[in-house]
Amino acid sequence: MKKGKVFVISGPSGVGKGTLCHELMRKYPSLAQTTVSVTTRAPRPGETEGKHYYFRSEAEFDKMLKEGLFLETVDKFTHRYGTLFSEVEQVLDGGKNVILEIEMIGGANVKKHIPEAVLIFILPPTLEALTARITGRGSETESEIRLRQAQVEKEFDQAAPYEYFVVNDVLDDAVENVKAIIVAEGLKDALSDVKQNYFGRD
Amino acid sequence: MKKGKVFVISGPSGVGKGTLCHELMRKYPSLAQTTVSVTTRAPRPGETEGKHYYFRSEAEFDKMLKEGLFLETVDKFTHRYGTLFSEVEQVLDGGKNVILEIEMIGGANVKKHIPEAVLIFILPPTLEALTARITGRGSETESEIRLRQAQVEKEFDQAAPYEYFVVNDVLDDAVENVKAIIVAEGLKDALSDVKQNYFGRD
Repeated sequence: MKKGKVFVISGPSGVGKGTLCHELMRKYPSLAQTTVSVTTRAPRPGETEGKHYYFRSEAEFDKMLKEGLFLETVDKFTHRYGTLFSEVEQVLDGGKNVILEIEMIGGANVKKHIPEAVLIFILPPTLEALTARITGRGSETESEIRLRQAQVEKEFDQAAPYEYFVVNDVLDDAVENVKAIIVAEGLKDALSDVKQNYFGRD
Repeated sequence: MKKGKVFVISGPSGVGKGTLCHELMRKYPSLAQTTVSVTTRAPRPGETEGKHYYFRSEAEFDKMLKEGLFLETVDKFTHRYGTLFSEVEQVLDGGKNVILEIEMIGGANVKKHIPEAVLIFILPPTLEALTARITGRGSETESEIRLRQAQVEKEFDQAAPYEYFVVNDVLDDAVENVKAIIVAEGLKDALSDVKQNYFGRD
């Protein structure tokens, strides 16, 4: 059985990568699977252990980190999030693709551990659209907007290892483009494996 | 304007690559453009100079070959066929993708001249399906079939530089898969170019 591939979906804050992944999985559930992350934050109403997250204490998270269980981790505000190697491997071994919706900085870490991972960067239609979405509706000064744009530019520098760039303007177009990437990557193959299928040997 | 890319579509004789390309262009005419090849064979009824082929004499073909006008050439039976650099460049400069439906051996030559060309290999559903399609309907001896299969295996060895492998079982599925490859390849980008779009500089 052909092994699945890891697809990292990331992008600057506010670009709508969560919505995009959710819509992709809703529309094409057989295309890939997401994994359950570990977090140190408390469950919100309706969130279930092992379904939405694995909820762990700071101490437990630290222990898992030291044991090398994480493919990547990120600190968001006062909480920590991590993707488990075991979760990813379980899906891959089942012949399925994995989608990891993570912060930009995590992409480089995933690539380090899994060189064949495919990194997809989600872009805003315009810089203005992105900053407007984050800062609110026109309540900022010019200098605040410029500051935010400078931050976004810095965020973009983390995108160096990303290979594919998908603009999230019309959601459905973005979903179709990410789908095309996943389908196309599944068609990449080594001639030796192809020959094995047809001739039973290399 | 973003430049187009070159997509080589090839595969063993009888795999249906011509039908696939024709259906792809019919269904998605804006996805890519084909080019007009040069041939030394005589026009068939209904074929037009400059539309179906550029019909040239052996001597003219030789002259063009010496002048380095061909991206790739192939000999089929007693006739010769060639893809012109100028035809390909014209489409690329217009920001469109080029589809070259060529013999397998041509793929390596295209890749040599245009390293960023994307090589797609069309596979038969099974080895038996392919040999049946070529040799006719069961009129061959066992040894003839084995000989043909050995030839196919040799043909497969020319596929080493090919990156994508698409099985042509259900035509419409194969068309959708090739489309996904062309769409996905168009989403590959360099961060420097992406930043240029958003921030007006590297």
